[in-house]
This record gives sequence, C-alpha cells and structure tokens, in this order.
Amino acid sequence: MPELRRDPVTGRWVIISTGRRARPSDFHLEPHAVVRDGYCPFCPGHEDLTPPEILAYRTNGSGRDTPGWDLRVVPNKFPALKVEGALDREGEGMFDRMNGVGAHEVIIETPDHAKTLAAMSDDEIERVLAAFRDRMLDLRQDRRLRYIVLFKNHGAPAGATLEHSHSQLIALPIVPDFVREELDGARHHFADKERCVFCDIVRQELAFGRRVILEDADHVAIAPYAPRFPFEAWLVPRRHGARFEEAAPHEYRSLARLLKAVLLRMNRALESPSYNLIVHTSPFTDETRDFYHWHVELMPRLTRVAGFEWGTGFYINPTSPEEAARVLRAVKA
Amino acid sequence: MPELRRDPVTGRWVIISTGRRARPSDFHLEPHAVVRDGYCPFCPGHEDLTPPEILAYRTNGSGRDTPGWDLRVVPNKFPALKVEGALDREGEGMFDRMNGVGAHEVIIETPDHAKTLAAMSDDEIERVLAAFRDRMLDLRQDRRLRYIVLFKNHGAPAGATLEHSHSQLIALPIVPDFVREELDGARHHFADKERCVFCDIVRQELAFGRRVILEDADHVAIAPYAPRFPFEAWLVPRRHGARFEEAAPHEYRSLARLLKAVLLRMNRALESPSYNLIVHTSPFTDETRDFYHWHVELMPRLTRVAGFEWGTGFYINPTSPEEAARVLRAVKA
Repeated sequence: MPELRRDPVTGRWVIISTGRRARPSDFHLEPHAVVRDGYCPFCPGHEDLTPPEILAYRTNGSGRDTPGWDLRVVPNKFPALKVEGALDREGEGMFDRMNGVGAHEVIIETPDHAKTLAAMSDDEIERVLAAFRDRMLDLRQDRRLRYIVLFKNHGAPAGATLEHSHSQLIALPIVPDFVREELDGARHHFADKERCVFCDIVRQELAFGRRVILEDADHVAIAPYAPRFPFEAWLVPRRHGARFEEAAPHEYRSLARLLKAVLLRMNRALESPSYNLIVHTSPFTDETRDFYHWHVELMPRLTRVAGFEWGTGFYINPTSPEEAARVLRAVKA
Repeated sequence: MPELRRDPVTGRWVIISTGRRARPSDFHLEPHAVVRDGYCPFCPGHEDLTPPEILAYRTNGSGRDTPGWDLRVVPNKFPALKVEGALDREGEGMFDRMNGVGAHEVIIETPDHAKTLAAMSDDEIERVLAAFRDRMLDLRQDRRLRYIVLFKNHGAPAGATLEHSHSQLIALPIVPDFVREELDGARHHFADKERCVFCDIVRQELAFGRRVILEDADHVAIAPYAPRFPFEAWLVPRRHGARFEEAAPHEYRSLARLLKAVLLRMNRALESPSYNLIVHTSPFTDETRDFYHWHVELMPRLTRVAGFEWGTGFYINPTSPEEAARVLRAVKA
C-alpha cells in the first residue's frame, strides 16, 4: 500500500509509493524510450492493455473498452495511490502518515497516436478540458479526498514515458504544499484588502501590458512577474472563481482556444519544447470561494534544473518575463 | 543587473539573471558536454581562465592565481548575482523586487582533475568543509546579505557543467523559501515544546534504528522519514547548533569522514550516481539559535523529476527510507 508521509519540519507531504521500483538496480537515469506506434497501450484496439475505462466520450455507440472513442480515461496501470481502503491516519512518534488512498488516472486525449495537444482542434482541446471537469466533479464526491492535481507531461524531458498524448490526475486525501502556499498567500491578501490576489494580478498586468502574452474575452495569458522557469506562462480567467470544475461552458471553450494559441507560439519560438501543464484549482472546500482563483500554469522545459533549484525550490531564471512575453507576442500566428 | 523578484501569491523569491542566455535559440536541453582534461578552467596552470581567486589554501608559498594550491575559491564566471551595487528595493504596483546583489562563488575542491569528493582523503574533504566555513564567516560580515546557499552538483544529470570536482555558494539578500519553510516549522515546534525539532528527530531515529544509515560520535546519517527522493540522506550533527560555520573543529573532521562513508556506500549500491549536496544552515540572525539545527542533505539523482514534482514541489518517491537505509547499511565497506 502506498503511504503519505509528512515531513515533521516543513509539514510537506510526500507519497512513498514502492510498487514499481524496489531495488537500486531498477533505477534508470535516462527517460524511458518513448513508445512508438504498434505497442502503444493508448491506441484504439489496445484497450485491453489498460485497466478498464472510467470514462469515455464516444460518438458511434461503441461498447466499453473497445475502439470508437474520442477520449478515454483509465486508471494509471502503475498508480502512485490506490482507490481501495480506509484512510487510516496514524502517528509514529513525532511523525505522521496515512494510507496512500487516492486516485491516479490517465486521460487519453485522442485516439490519434501522433496528434499533440497543440495540433488538436479547438473542439478536441475543449473535450480534454471537459474530461478534466467531469473527473473532478465525480471524484470530489469521495469524502476521503481533499485535492486533485491535474497535470500533463509533454515530451520525455518533461517526464512523459509514452508518446501518445495524455494527461494525468492524482486525487489526494491531503492538500499538497504548493497549493497550501498559494492558499495561504491568497487568504492573507484577501484578509488585508478584501480582494482576490489573482484578480489584482490580472488588472495590474493588463494595465502594464509588457507581461501579457495573449488575451481574449475570458482569459489572460501572462508571463508571471516572478517566474521560476524561462517562458513560464499562466492562463488566468478574468472572472473570479475558485474551482476549475465550476467554470462556465464558454470559459472552457475560450480556454481551449487560448491554450492552443499559446502552445503554437511556444512551438514556433522555442522549437516545439517539452512542457508541463498544471491546473491550479481549489481544494474540495467552500472556504476558498472568495480568495482563491483557479488558473493553468504552463512550463516549457528549456533549462536543466540543477542542484540549487532541485533541492531547494529556489529558482534562477535566465529569461525575464517581459522578454518571454515579447518573444511570444511577436510570433507570427 | 540580475534581479530578485517576489511572487505576490506565494511570497517565493526567484532570481531573474539574464546575463547568460537571452534568446530562445540559446537554450540547450541536454547538459553541456562535460569538459575533459586540457581545457579545464579549474586545473592548475589555468588560473587565468577564472576570475582572480578570493581564497586559496596553499602549502608551498606559491603566489596568488598560480599553481601550488590545494583548494581555490573564485567568483563564478557567469554569476547569478553580482557583488557590486546597492540593494535598491522597490515595488512595482503590487510586486516587489530588489537588485540582484549577492555573491556566486565556486569552490574548486582539489587540483586533481579526476578526483571526486568521494575519492578524496578525510583531510581533503575536511579542507573543503573548512573552505565552506571560511567563506561563510567572511560573507556574513556583508550587511546586505541574509543567507548563503552552499551546494554541490556532482555529475551532468545533477546539473554539473564541469567535471573537475567543485562546489558553489550563492549568498543572498533574502532568505529563500525552502529555508523559510524549515525555519517556520522549527520555530513552531520549539514554541510548542521548547525543543529543537531536529534534536527530536535525531533522538527518535536513533531509538527506532531502521532509518539510520551510519552514525558516529558527532553525527547521524539518516534516511529522512518523508524523503522527496529515493536514497535521500541527511547528515545531522548530534550537538545542537544553528550555524554550519560555528561547528567545532572535531565536528568538521568527523563530518568529512561520515560524508565520505555515505558517498562510498551510495557509489557501491547505486553505481556511482550523480548527486546534489546542500548545506542547510541558519540565516545571518541570532533569532534562530535555539530552534534551528544545521545539517547536510544529500540527494542522489536517480529518478527523472517529472511534471508533477517539478511544477508543484510535491514528490512521489518509489523507495521507502527504511529500504534505502537498509540497502546502504548492507553495503560492504
């Protein structure tokens, strides 16, 4: 059974998930070779290579776990957390642990092995976002769970082990540290000013202009003021809302368009980089309604994160966000 | 001029250091080829390839910036921060920045190009630790500075760009987020219990035993309870002390021996992995004296950090610390 353990100094929770690799010789430094066509477990016709599907969007009346789907969600075959079991929290002297209860799912975004997210149509990207929403709405009914991390690793340097375009979600019984930090900051700002800090950021960035990459009626894509990574981009909805899964239908539609536009510009400017995408949304609580503001963070993987950053979470970024925004704005679409 | 910028939500400071790579085409995904003998700027006889030395330990009366040294400290040729200038703090609307004033130095640990830290004698490793201490004692006199991050990247996957064994220090006018988190946790624990949290950890780990890798009269090497990385190891002094640079002479001596022993065991068990080493010590303030406890964190680089970890600081670790400690204890020395 995987475990969640809390560091007694920092309060940071980690997942200790020993299922996959138990022995030192099992470690591989280089990324797994990306799987090519033929043996891809995510391709139509290979549905038996994944656990049974949790959700699928189908248009032709095809049956479960058979070809004919447009998008398919399955449990991760090597999950970091497991759905079964009680949450058993316990102390071990000064230490705190709980069973690694949670969900780890894979969103197979398209039946087309070769189609990247950036190459999908607006409709197809919107379908991916709809799957994110649908899984969140379902999982938040599980009273054991507190938070869902929704993320995408594109390309081997970003951590992808399979080429076929997919995202992942990990549903957790705790709120991870990075969300807690955002929540604390946003709560503090609201307590001071009675305003959402992200709403303030959007207003200030639109007025300043130089860190805006793109904007539309519903969202602003900005290079954030203090980015950890070169060409990091945040896609922030203009309308205040704490939860991704409660956005309005037209917001998913425009987010799909904006995400595609930003990805295409990154592909042109940065030679189709690997990237990580993370949906930042509220934990399953109403308490955050006024002060938290969901958004999407996009991080092309351009620099090798070295010891300083890796061990410390303290980042040196060689590209200013003003320069990054300027470069991305200047790309001919 | 590099800048320090603070994220308005999380309070996290980042360094925006645009000196080296300005344009998208300047990014390289793969690590720089490790430099082989002949052109190594850290080898004796090539002293003119580095900025003038700040500190050197010499035994034969040789002159500055000439061969004859046992260890040499020089400014980083491509510094993330610069020593010159005022600290100019300013706001930009809701954002906070200051000039990137600080120091970025390289500790060239040995004149021998091919000798790794693990292959050095106890005396040689002790000399490296003495250089860490001497630079900290010197730099903390600069009233603009608040913290020194001392770290070592060994091997290209850990971020090293030069093969010749070296460490780095970055002296900062702010306290980085990862230290602030540790300080907050340790302060809170002390306020609750009137005890240092690290002292409590040492006591509990020694009593429990299963996460102890090695111990001696002065230090304990443990696999921490909630490690972010497989085979992560902490070297913690038994005697309480907030500052690395104020350890007793015999503590540096025994730390050198213990560090070598742990590195040799990692080399045997994990096939000479790349690793990052980070000295965790107090900021330049007396306030931490009772509740903070310096230590060294060692992280072999075995897994590729993927999107989930990279963007969030939330880690999935496939090896339990009990298993890691067992494997490292079992290595035949």
